[in-house]
Amino acid sequence: MKKLSIGLVGSGFMGRAHAQAFRAVGGLFDLPFEPVLDLLAERDEATAADAAARLGFRRHCGDWRRLVEDPEIDVVAITTPNRLHAPIALAAIAAGKHVYCEKPLATTLEDARAMAAAAEATGVVTLVGFNYLKNPMIALARELVAGGEIGEVTGFRGIHAEDFMADPLAPFTWRCEADNAGGALADIGSHILSLATYLAGDIRSVSGRLHTVHGRRPAAAGSAEMREVRVDDQAHALVEFANGATGSVTASWIAQGRKMQLAFELVGTRGSIAFTQERFNELWLYQAGGAPGRSGYRLVTAGPEHADYAAFCPAPGHQLGFNDLKTIEVKALIEAIAGKAPAYPDFRAACELERVAEAIHRSSAERRWVDVAEV
Amino acid sequence: MKKLSIGLVGSGFMGRAHAQAFRAVGGLFDLPFEPVLDLLAERDEATAADAAARLGFRRHCGDWRRLVEDPEIDVVAITTPNRLHAPIALAAIAAGKHVYCEKPLATTLEDARAMAAAAEATGVVTLVGFNYLKNPMIALARELVAGGEIGEVTGFRGIHAEDFMADPLAPFTWRCEADNAGGALADIGSHILSLATYLAGDIRSVSGRLHTVHGRRPAAAGSAEMREVRVDDQAHALVEFANGATGSVTASWIAQGRKMQLAFELVGTRGSIAFTQERFNELWLYQAGGAPGRSGYRLVTAGPEHADYAAFCPAPGHQLGFNDLKTIEVKALIEAIAGKAPAYPDFRAACELERVAEAIHRSSAERRWVDVAEV
Amino acid sequence: MKKLSIGLVGSGFMGRAHAQAFRAVGGLFDLPFEPVLDLLAERDEATAADAAARLGFRRHCGDWRRLVEDPEIDVVAITTPNRLHAPIALAAIAAGKHVYCEKPLATTLEDARAMAAAAEATGVVTLVGFNYLKNPMIALARELVAGGEIGEVTGFRGIHAEDFMADPLAPFTWRCEADNAGGALADIGSHILSLATYLAGDIRSVSGRLHTVHGRRPAAAGSAEMREVRVDDQAHALVEFANGATGSVTASWIAQGRKMQLAFELVGTRGSIAFTQERFNELWLYQAGGAPGRSGYRLVTAGPEHADYAAFCPAPGHQLGFNDLKTIEVKALIEAIAGKAPAYPDFRAACELERVAEAIHRSSAERRWVDVAEV
Amino acid sequence: MKKLSIGLVGSGFMGRAHAQAFRAVGGLFDLPFEPVLDLLAERDEATAADAAARLGFRRHCGDWRRLVEDPEIDVVAITTPNRLHAPIALAAIAAGKHVYCEKPLATTLEDARAMAAAAEATGVVTLVGFNYLKNPMIALARELVAGGEIGEVTGFRGIHAEDFMADPLAPFTWRCEADNAGGALADIGSHILSLATYLAGDIRSVSGRLHTVHGRRPAAAGSAEMREVRVDDQAHALVEFANGATGSVTASWIAQGRKMQLAFELVGTRGSIAFTQERFNELWLYQAGGAPGRSGYRLVTAGPEHADYAAFCPAPGHQLGFNDLKTIEVKALIEAIAGKAPAYPDFRAACELERVAEAIHRSSAERRWVDVAEV
Repeated sequence: MKKLSIGLVGSGFMGRAHAQAFRAVGGLFDLPFEPVLDLLAERDEATAADAAARLGFRRHCGDWRRLVEDPEIDVVAITTPNRLHAPIALAAIAAGKHVYCEKPLATTLEDARAMAAAAEATGVVTLVGFNYLKNPMIALARELVAGGEIGEVTGFRGIHAEDFMADPLAPFTWRCEADNAGGALADIGSHILSLATYLAGDIRSVSGRLHTVHGRRPAAAGSAEMREVRVDDQAHALVEFANGATGSVTASWIAQGRKMQLAFELVGTRGSIAFTQERFNELWLYQAGGAPGRSGYRLVTAGPEHADYAAFCPAPGHQLGFNDLKTIEVKALIEAIAGKAPAYPDFRAACELERVAEAIHRSSAERRWVDVAEV
Repeated sequence: MKKLSIGLVGSGFMGRAHAQAFRAVGGLFDLPFEPVLDLLAERDEATAADAAARLGFRRHCGDWRRLVEDPEIDVVAITTPNRLHAPIALAAIAAGKHVYCEKPLATTLEDARAMAAAAEATGVVTLVGFNYLKNPMIALARELVAGGEIGEVTGFRGIHAEDFMADPLAPFTWRCEADNAGGALADIGSHILSLATYLAGDIRSVSGRLHTVHGRRPAAAGSAEMREVRVDDQAHALVEFANGATGSVTASWIAQGRKMQLAFELVGTRGSIAFTQERFNELWLYQAGGAPGRSGYRLVTAGPEHADYAAFCPAPGHQLGFNDLKTIEVKALIEAIAGKAPAYPDFRAACELERVAEAIHRSSAERRWVDVAEV
Repeated sequence: MKKLSIGLVGSGFMGRAHAQAFRAVGGLFDLPFEPVLDLLAERDEATAADAAARLGFRRHCGDWRRLVEDPEIDVVAITTPNRLHAPIALAAIAAGKHVYCEKPLATTLEDARAMAAAAEATGVVTLVGFNYLKNPMIALARELVAGGEIGEVTGFRGIHAEDFMADPLAPFTWRCEADNAGGALADIGSHILSLATYLAGDIRSVSGRLHTVHGRRPAAAGSAEMREVRVDDQAHALVEFANGATGSVTASWIAQGRKMQLAFELVGTRGSIAFTQERFNELWLYQAGGAPGRSGYRLVTAGPEHADYAAFCPAPGHQLGFNDLKTIEVKALIEAIAGKAPAYPDFRAACELERVAEAIHRSSAERRWVDVAEV
Repeated sequence: MKKLSIGLVGSGFMGRAHAQAFRAVGGLFDLPFEPVLDLLAERDEATAADAAARLGFRRHCGDWRRLVEDPEIDVVAITTPNRLHAPIALAAIAAGKHVYCEKPLATTLEDARAMAAAAEATGVVTLVGFNYLKNPMIALARELVAGGEIGEVTGFRGIHAEDFMADPLAPFTWRCEADNAGGALADIGSHILSLATYLAGDIRSVSGRLHTVHGRRPAAAGSAEMREVRVDDQAHALVEFANGATGSVTASWIAQGRKMQLAFELVGTRGSIAFTQERFNELWLYQAGGAPGRSGYRLVTAGPEHADYAAFCPAPGHQLGFNDLKTIEVKALIEAIAGKAPAYPDFRAACELERVAEAIHRSSAERRWVDVAEV
């Protein structure tokens, strides 16, 4: 089988997840290419050497530029701090590589647009790591909507809430930097925006309210020095979809007790869907018209009749884990490279999501509704 | 024991609930007065006679004016169509009666203000039927907030969704009339606004979006004649609280599959509360600082250690029903009349809730943030 | 309307619940008789006088014998300690009264049999207070089984667990007395046995294991004196039903954290039902044969299309409380007295439940399977 | 790093799961050895060649004997039909290989005993695939018990229910063969027995009831020929633990609607634990002594503070999947081979579980309590 040479830039949380997914995918799916963990780049040689050994890469280098220009590399996977997404991706595209980039796509909308344009100009395959979209239960939700099984979508109410910044003494990090795609909305809110768009269609107009609850945080864990925080700890927005549906979206990283409340309720004219990533192998489905006294929401459990599940397990109820979603994402990337099906969200689609987030930021700052088309 | 003579106007869903609550309350609570089901008024003599017999009232009359002026009557309970709340309440106040009125208080903010002013001028006791506030679990939530047990409130996310108008062929009713306090926000959204205010404090500013999904409905069940609908089927709003917290509120009567999703998540700096009226004998409580690996939301179940529960049952876990909430409300009314504690929400507090709803309507119409103080 | 004169013996937890139910029922249901809270008997005049005033009875007396013989009384309601059920019921039956008795029917199987025989001989109406059977959701479960909507029942797995005796220092009470129908199985296990029988049919054979976890308890709260406990704190039993189904039943009053886990899973050849009294306005229903990838347990919520619900509320999702179940029970009693439908469980049916419990006791003592027919 | 050469026999559901786990484990855990997918054996050369290619093994062979004798192989992993477990394992042990065998260990207790004895005689490492024990939440449960955090265990109530044989027309398979470790109890009931033992200690005595609901099944899917079934479709058992706790255990493969209800409630003198594999990243924990009105079961969500979770993800709430449990199992195997910690359950421990199952079978057949020591 033809090999697909993977170059990974970054080896943190998401770097490990990428490596693991590329390592696992071949044993699970029948693929057109065999991915090879080829070259790992980190900030310096020593870090790169260590990470390559740990994650099972053949080669390493201390400079992402070398990786991007390496003629052996087919795919550049980017899991660096957000600020580096644009330069690495643009260089990779220029070198004709396919690019698999973690979200958010970029730290400015201008960068995101440039990345999308570059990708379109060269025709390389791009994919952005909105892994929660790869869940078989989300595929089912989309299928239910597309097939009209819940009628026409009229309402969406979504949230992504966690609590990793809930402690007022949680220290300032790059996530708190306004010029580094920081803030709850950009950091995790993008996931609920991606689900909203994937299931209910494009967002046309927004009214947002960003809220910095903890305006000062320690410069480091335990430090007495305080740094000013300008990004949002929580954000709420009203949204209007292109198809006329309306809804609301919330993002928060100070939601005490929540670890992964990426959740939505989707209402259609003939049914409803409810979901939370906290129990992501389940989907709640209501369809109007059941027998009197016997109707209600149905608890659908992931099984081999749902997209991609059977690759992991032939029996229902066994459940996928987070890393499995990443593996499905990598499978989608490889199939897109083989021309089987377009990958989603590519740079253009991810750019559109950033546009929505930018519209919410502007709406909050200017205290008015903002059309996404303005941005 | 001194008797308290009850005059009830109206005998529909809520009329029956009032009668049942007045009938039950004396056997459950140790009260300063004994309520007597004295006089029932309906639109005509025959209807009144029938209802009085059914609901156990001693006397009846076919004109609410006679009831309001009856010297025997101590309390006027109003469960008529919304349009009649104001004239009946104003007449009752003028006659020196205490007034127990169903929500919404009035069909216009002007009426609501006049009612609140009249009540304050005469000093009669007033209470508006936001029965969900009387739940022991909501009393617990308020106690948790007031005692700082979840820190300072920073976020609120609430909804009241049902599906009784979800069918596009559900006929036009008075609930669809714009000048009769119609629409999902006014009809059921008021409940989630009352919870938001009760728990997180006054709402200062709003950005709302009302949405008429089904713009035409049959004039009557099965009718081919269609009437235009101008009120909202669903509404979303961003809210800013006086204390700086922010949040969102949703109301919908077209939420397929939902029967009583009056639900909220309340986030504080040191904990969180989650609640749904679908399981209203439960409260989810998270408090930061638990032992590592052993912390999480706690499922608190209503029991005799919570407000008012013990009056219904000495053992935990037995659960209150909807009518029991109404009974607690009536108990609060009687105690307020005896001067024991102010009733909440009285006409002034309910008027403030109508003001918020009005601000959301105006915000939606003018597509801008509206300060409640403007309204 | 003809009055039905109620004589209540006892005014504790269940006495109050009876009084409240008789007080409420007339305002909710269209009944053939109007129940009147007539005479209350307690252990002495003073207690009786106080209770009668509190619970709204017209008359009182300090001796249950006087009540039973009172010619005005139509119905004798018994909510005394278990030991008195038999003498009071037998005297009431002898006096031609209808009898409404709390569970367990008696403290010995001999007494229970005598009571059932006496009732059958005179033809009075009897009803035993297994109030959980009166839940509209349980009526639905029975309807689903009877109509074959889940096929033939093949398995039952039930439990009634609470934690009111979980503390090793919870003091010795009459519930701990072996000769007073004490122990977890007799006290609360009877509820799950009643559900098992009601839904899956008669139990034919049992293998039981009673377990006294805390063999000594303080003679009173805080007392240093310890009394020996001979009754079970928890009990498990295998059961075989007459129709061939098999299952297991558990009772425990030391189940830390449980307040009302009266729960079961009922499996049929074409579907399943799951239920817990902790959320008793809900029933989980699975029916085989759903659309691929869209099937699952359905969460059915109580509404006006279910038995008796509409009497309490015309709208779905509002929920009944524990006292409402007691009110439905009283309605069933009154209708049975009017000859409309037999009351269930009457003394005979309750006697059969005691027989099953006795069989479990014997099985545990003799460490062998016991046929109920042996007992 | 030293390599560990893996020889896998079988390539079905579990064969794939083993391969995937060995493939993934090195990228997640810091291991003493690097496992190498070396040799795969299947029933014939062609099947083996195909499977080796699919699962990523270097070599293949059409006879497990060749694999067992191959001097390069360090570990023999057995995922064949149950009947072959004993001969393969015995041969592997004789050849000095470590053995990783799927459950059930053998089809007869004699075989299981011989396997355990052989392993003990040679000192090779053995591990049996009770993968559900490897869940971080089960590790937490064990830690809570061991640390006395719920007091002393007094009760256990467990079940493993699925519905893959619920359809009466589900065809006869090897799982239906009595002499092939068939039946619900042996096939899936072993999982709940393993949990019971792991958490509450050794089982001393049992009273069981096996139930063949569907006594005849089609010889093959759609076939008109019917074969007699002698194994249980569902089984219930009472259990007594060596430490005095009592409980019940249920197994069923005809539980309509259930896909993975491997669930238990564990009651201790000072707290309780509840768990279901349907939501296996969660554990419900109750501890006595909470603040009045604020106590209840806590919903603990898997996170990096729990065993092994952090290897998969540094952030809480992301969730493990079924295959991740297998990966943890393989990690435990490799660490045991390196002498770091004994693997559990080894052949001896798994043999003890088979003894309990055999005692339940005997108890059901002889309709009496059976001490495990008898068997």
